[in-house]
Amino acid sequence: MGVFTELADGPQEFDKLAGRLGLHERSARDFLDALVALGFLKRNGDTYSNTDETDLFLDKKKPSYLGGMLEMANARLYRFWGSLTEALRTGRLQNEAKTGEAHFFQALYADPARLRAFLKAMSGLSHGANIAIAKQFPWAKYKTFADVGTAQGDLATQIALANPHLTGIGFDLAECGPCFEEYVEANGVNDRVRFQPGSFFTDALPKVDVITMGHILHDWDLEEKKMLVKKAFDALPTGGALVVYDAIIDNDRSKNAFGLMMSLNMLIETEGGFDYTGADCIGWMEEAGFKECYVEHLVGPDSMVVGLK
Amino acid sequence: MGVFTELADGPQEFDKLAGRLGLHERSARDFLDALVALGFLKRNGDTYSNTDETDLFLDKKKPSYLGGMLEMANARLYRFWGSLTEALRTGRLQNEAKTGEAHFFQALYADPARLRAFLKAMSGLSHGANIAIAKQFPWAKYKTFADVGTAQGDLATQIALANPHLTGIGFDLAECGPCFEEYVEANGVNDRVRFQPGSFFTDALPKVDVITMGHILHDWDLEEKKMLVKKAFDALPTGGALVVYDAIIDNDRSKNAFGLMMSLNMLIETEGGFDYTGADCIGWMEEAGFKECYVEHLVGPDSMVVGLK
Repeated sequence: MGVFTELADGPQEFDKLAGRLGLHERSARDFLDALVALGFLKRNGDTYSNTDETDLFLDKKKPSYLGGMLEMANARLYRFWGSLTEALRTGRLQNEAKTGEAHFFQALYADPARLRAFLKAMSGLSHGANIAIAKQFPWAKYKTFADVGTAQGDLATQIALANPHLTGIGFDLAECGPCFEEYVEANGVNDRVRFQPGSFFTDALPKVDVITMGHILHDWDLEEKKMLVKKAFDALPTGGALVVYDAIIDNDRSKNAFGLMMSLNMLIETEGGFDYTGADCIGWMEEAGFKECYVEHLVGPDSMVVGLK
Repeated sequence: MGVFTELADGPQEFDKLAGRLGLHERSARDFLDALVALGFLKRNGDTYSNTDETDLFLDKKKPSYLGGMLEMANARLYRFWGSLTEALRTGRLQNEAKTGEAHFFQALYADPARLRAFLKAMSGLSHGANIAIAKQFPWAKYKTFADVGTAQGDLATQIALANPHLTGIGFDLAECGPCFEEYVEANGVNDRVRFQPGSFFTDALPKVDVITMGHILHDWDLEEKKMLVKKAFDALPTGGALVVYDAIIDNDRSKNAFGLMMSLNMLIETEGGFDYTGADCIGWMEEAGFKECYVEHLVGPDSMVVGLK
């Protein structure tokens, strides 16, 4: 509905706000007051305003906006989760691809507007973890990196911003190029971060010191996951590192509810994807030849798994 | 899926449980472990069990089961809430009646299985508040009562169980009779509580000392609400009482999120229904002639509003 973007310019009285949002008189007060009671808005007399949090994170015009995933949930996922029972019983995805028309990513890449919305959603979901990786990983030891499956390029951007000695590559399908280049330029790192088109299924990965994969492995089935980890191993020099991050599930699979729910989201969205524990990922890394593997928490539900070649 | 009913007979190992629930191997672990992480199940080794709470409240075979509303949300409301935006913009309901086929309650009463499920759902939603009213209201002053819009009869049953000196009537459309009579008999109060068929739109209300209306007023528009309050006033003797309860919204409309969301649910489900504050209800009561009106909290989001004639 754009409530928080509308209120980002300042508080508004009820009549004006309801009018600008196009709310019917039957529903306007209940909707806005429910948002007050749920802690998303404040109300003083008859005037509504954003909270600090909704102003920062849910105003579409701010770079800190992270509602892209919520927009996607609104436009797509809510409906698909409505057939969760069928997914649980059949193990089959429930999104646009259910009718056999197109694979999720094929359908996505065929529609530029939807692709752009998806890439932004992924940035919103990843931004906090990206900033954490840019600070927490020992980047001082390395000179080059490639973010594989880079989407809009927020991880590559945050790494470059926090580490001026690094040069990096954003690697993804060619269709992501325009969105990526616009983003790195807007963030002033286009002199050190460039886009390299390619498919991590059919092409070799860039030869750099560190390869990152953020919210990538969970999209794919077990064999595809292992293939991607092995491909990273093959591309890295001795001493190089692979940094994988996702909503890594705790090894006991009893605490990270977000990670487990995200895995069910992969059930809804993909043919074979699933989220995984740190122990699972370290197993695949060691099988590929990595050593000194470890898990480190980033922010919220996300952790990174690091392996050295 | 019946997870909690299945586990009510005792803990089960993963393979057996997944098999009995018909869970596909791709989704079984993630689904059950997500329920562990969310606090709905416990897991010990490879064996899953209910928590104390899910065993008491979500086992369909127990009288304390309150999942009826969740079943209704699963079968109907989830889908209808998917068009909340349209409801907010148009003020129009979004359920089965949207296509003009049938009014919500007409469609409901036309389908015995759906009616029974709805009546059970209402009992589940109301049970805690019903027990509270049976204890908190000064029943010692009165001899007879009628629960108007009684559905399965849980409020009438709880009042009779807690107050052996009272005799009461459950008043609702004739179709509710079988379900009501089965319920009061199962609870052993059929000697003091009887069913009286009738419509609160076309018939006078029973002449008793106290009239209760639980989760009734919120279904209807402002004129209908006032008409029902007036009809109760007309049926009561001097000194009699009307007890209305709903998820009464706090007068500032900033705290009872459940009540405000329930009002949006009335937007989705009815032509003109809405939830309301204690001050709203006292206004309608005073307009009808009631005096000494007050609001008293019951349990959770529910409060009762009492008026004396």
